[in-house]
Formats: sequence, C-alpha cells, structure tokens
Amino acid sequence: MINVLFAATEQRWSEYEAPLRESFAARDLSVDLRTDFAPEEVDYIVYAPNSPLQDFTPYTRCKAVLNLWAGVEAIVGNQTLTQPLTRMVDHGLSRGMVEWVSGHVLRHHLDIDHYLAHQDGDWAAAHKVPPLAEERGVTILGLGELGRACAEALAQFGFPVTGWSRSQKEIPGITCLSGETGLDEALSGAQILVLLLPLTDETTDLLDAARLAQLPQGAVVLNPGRGPMIVDEALIAALDSGHLRHATLDVFRTEPLPAPHPFWAHPKITVCPHIASETRPRTAAQVIAENVARGEAGRPLKFLVDRSRGY
Amino acid sequence: MINVLFAATEQRWSEYEAPLRESFAARDLSVDLRTDFAPEEVDYIVYAPNSPLQDFTPYTRCKAVLNLWAGVEAIVGNQTLTQPLTRMVDHGLSRGMVEWVSGHVLRHHLDIDHYLAHQDGDWAAAHKVPPLAEERGVTILGLGELGRACAEALAQFGFPVTGWSRSQKEIPGITCLSGETGLDEALSGAQILVLLLPLTDETTDLLDAARLAQLPQGAVVLNPGRGPMIVDEALIAALDSGHLRHATLDVFRTEPLPAPHPFWAHPKITVCPHIASETRPRTAAQVIAENVARGEAGRPLKFLVDRSRGY
Repeated sequence: MINVLFAATEQRWSEYEAPLRESFAARDLSVDLRTDFAPEEVDYIVYAPNSPLQDFTPYTRCKAVLNLWAGVEAIVGNQTLTQPLTRMVDHGLSRGMVEWVSGHVLRHHLDIDHYLAHQDGDWAAAHKVPPLAEERGVTILGLGELGRACAEALAQFGFPVTGWSRSQKEIPGITCLSGETGLDEALSGAQILVLLLPLTDETTDLLDAARLAQLPQGAVVLNPGRGPMIVDEALIAALDSGHLRHATLDVFRTEPLPAPHPFWAHPKITVCPHIASETRPRTAAQVIAENVARGEAGRPLKFLVDRSRGY
Repeated sequence: MINVLFAATEQRWSEYEAPLRESFAARDLSVDLRTDFAPEEVDYIVYAPNSPLQDFTPYTRCKAVLNLWAGVEAIVGNQTLTQPLTRMVDHGLSRGMVEWVSGHVLRHHLDIDHYLAHQDGDWAAAHKVPPLAEERGVTILGLGELGRACAEALAQFGFPVTGWSRSQKEIPGITCLSGETGLDEALSGAQILVLLLPLTDETTDLLDAARLAQLPQGAVVLNPGRGPMIVDEALIAALDSGHLRHATLDVFRTEPLPAPHPFWAHPKITVCPHIASETRPRTAAQVIAENVARGEAGRPLKFLVDRSRGY
C-alpha cells in the first residue's frame, strides 16, 4: 500500500479525490489516499501552496512532493523541503486555453452574438454573412507555450495569425513580430487581439488608451492572460466611443471581479470568471498518478523542479 | 476586350460587381462587365438560375456559361444551351461551413451562452469549468465534402468525432459508421450532433421522436444541412422535456422561417437565417475570373458540367 497525503484545501479535496482515485486505479497502484496520516507514514504528498502544511521535516519517508499547480514560487524556497519536488504540467490547461481562445475568436468572427440578439422572427434583420477566417487578422500578444498553441490552432483554421513576443520567435505559418515597432504592426492588424503575455513591469498597463487606439476600427479584445495588462478605464472609453466592437475578459485586476465594477454591466464586455486556464482535476490527476508510478518503479520523476533555479 | 454578361438578379449584381471587377483586374483581364449586351457580342455569361435569360440561342459568340451556384439542375436541361457550362466550386462555401460548424460546436461545448447569461455581477454563479474537447463526443451525419471537412476540423481540435454516412467511409482520425446499426451507435454517442446529409427520401424526417430519444441526455443538435431532416414538433418536445439542451438551426422546412413559427421564440433554439453555406462573392468571383482566363488562353475550363449526367 502506498500512502499518499492530499495536502490542500477542502474544496480541492472535493474536486480531486475522485479523479485521483480513478487515475491511481487506472495504473493498478494500491494507494491509500487521505488528507491525514502520521507524517512518518507518508510516501508522497500531493500539495497545493495554500495548504497549512509548511514544515516537511517530519515526513521522513516521503519520496516526493507533487505540486498541483504549475507555479512553485510559494514552496520552492521552503528550507524544510528536502524531498524531490515536481510541478504540474497539465495538458488540460493548455488544451482548455486553446479551446477558450478558439471558441471566443470564432464567436466574434462569426458574430454569433448578432444572431442571438435577432431571435424575434425578423429573418431579414438577422441575415448577415460573415467574412471568411482568411479575411480576419488575429494577433496574439505572447508566444509562450499557451500563446503558441493558440496561434497554431487559429492558423490551422485559416486565420492570418500574427504573434508578438519580447524576443523574436520563428513559428511556421505565423507572422512573428517583436520589439516596439513590431508591436505597432501587430496591433494595427489585429481585428481580434488575444492577450497571452506574462505579467511583468513592462506588460502592466500595456493596453492603454494610446495602444487601444492603434487597433483597427471594430476590433475585438480577448484577455485570457492577466488582468493588469489592460487599463480598465481606457478599454471602456474605447468601447463607448465605438472604436472597439467588444471585449471578452477572463482575468481582472481584482478577482473575483467585484459586483459594482463597470465591466459586469457593460453591453460590449463579456465577463468570464477566470476559467480559460483552469488546471483540470481529471488531467492533472493523471500526471500525479504517473509520477507516483514512476517513483514506485524507481524511474525519474517528470517535471522535477530544479531548486537552484527556482522552477 | 472580353465582353462578360452578368445574367442574374439586381441584388446579385450589387453583391458581385465589385468582386468580379477585382478578380478580373487581378488576372490582368481586359473585361467589359455589364448586365446588358447585344447577344452576339457576348464572350462569357455569368449566370444564376433565377435570371430572366432562358434562351441562349442568340449568344452565338459565347464561349461558356459560368454558373454562379453549385447546383445546375435549373439550367442543365435547357435545350437552347449549347455552350460549355461550368458549375461553382467555391472554397468559401466549404470554409464557411467549417467555420460555422466549428464556431457553434465550440459555443455549445464551452457553453458560452451560460456566461452571456451571467453578466449580473455574481462571479460564483457564473463560475463553471467546461470539460475538454477530448471528453465531448461529436457526431456528424453525412460525410460528403462538407461533412468530411467539418469532421476533420473538429478532430484536429481534439473532439472524438464519429461520422455516419450511407456508404461506409474511411477517414483517418474519424470513427466512420454506416447502416442502421451504425446510426444507432452514432446517435447514442452524440453529445453534439451535426446534420450534413443530403436531402433524400431516406433523410426526410430522419430526426423524429424515436431518433432524438437515442441522443444522450443534454445533447445539442446543430442543423446547417437541410430543414426537412428534422421533425419540428419532435425537436421542440425533446427540448421542452429537458432531454436536449439546445438546437441551433440554420435551415428550415420553409425559408425565410415565418415569424409565427415556434422555433423563433423558443429559449432553447437559436435560429440562424441560412448563412452557414453561402457562396461568398469574393471567392466565387475568383473562380469565375480563373475560368475566363482559362477560356481566353484556350485551356480547359474548371468544373465543367457533364450534361449527359446532369452535374
């Protein structure tokens, strides 16, 4: 019997217990999965950074700490942690992002909202033929793992895709730009703009009034990345003036987005409650189970964190 | 100068004049494009079946009649037509269908309507994480040119795609079924069902109460194919009982769909005004211009109709 301690919040336990049990069973691992053990009996710890468990010293038999999230910044500096630490690389997170971005790009490309608003029996008023994807420029700011996956999915669909990143990239089928001049060009061709940059000092407030004005008339902004990249007031002004057609936002400066925030009631803004990049319990549980199986077989763990580098 | 007669309705002229002029110019063809000529001066006729032109006898110099639509059934039997006849094969039609089907599959897969209905400031009520495409079975009835293109696009996206057709097909990455037993299996796995069969005696009323009952609980029906494949009353009953989640329909038994028809006001039905498979003037004009260029260069025309077969 392998003793696996689940060290995270109650809510996570309710989400992860069943998928973890299924994933262990699918690998024929005899696991005792619980939220409490005597520390010296624990073989593996499934860990989320907001867990009360902070002192790893008594877990003398523990073979590895398996982080549930991609980010390990909250645990990597813990001096009591001497066990191997792995981070989560969940293909569900990347697939979920590609699906969210593609779904909302197609929604705005086809203007599905137009048909939803014309269900009153007036066929002629509803009639409108959208252009083809090949006529609709899409720009993605950020060409990391997620940005690149989205760019490739949209290009496969026929959209002319421009990607912009700090350092120049080369991706077949994508127009890759970088630098300040590249940003001007990326924005001016963005009939649909997707924000997938990491949040840094340079990207905070990136989309201000001046940069929003560079977007073509009628452009749509999708933000599944980080909230502070957009200056909220400037976005509202650009929508109200008619310069932008719509904004669909999944991330915000404050989350949950407070009920009085003007984004909620704005007719040209769709608020999504930070769902584009959720780690999926089912796919994440498969990664955890695979690493337990590897540990038991004496094989190297996947996604091991190099603590000297911090990731 | 090449004299090209545009023989269709006024509305088509307003849609096609500019794209045709652009396409001829792009090929450096000196074309005089008009809606009237002395018949004996005409070199090519761009033709739509609802044109008043029905007697082709006086068009003695005409090198070809270029049909604007894919269907030629209204002209192919015309005994006065001795000139070569081409039909339209517009990649815009196929791409438009793939985009419409993918956009609405993703809309229902992600349940975008849920977020659109939760814009009232209640983050927790809006919160809902959709499954991944790999967990959502999509079935396409009909594996002709359009059905196959849609199946391949959705499979590339990660959906497990089942395709059903009268004769057994083999398409890499798609579970291909046929026959009555195959139809049972195709329907029972269809969390999202897409109708792209041709309309025949066998497919009329195909989706009746019994077949709708075979769909899994919560299934969504998309019909961009032909209206009479669905029994309207049975669809409404299956939605009202809660068995089906939604239907998005682009085609109807009567078009335009009359304002009193219950589909319009039904909260679980989205009516689209037959836009999924529109021939696009821009891409269709390119096909016309290419054939004029081929005719002038003495090369064989593309998409020539074999009048002995009728298509």
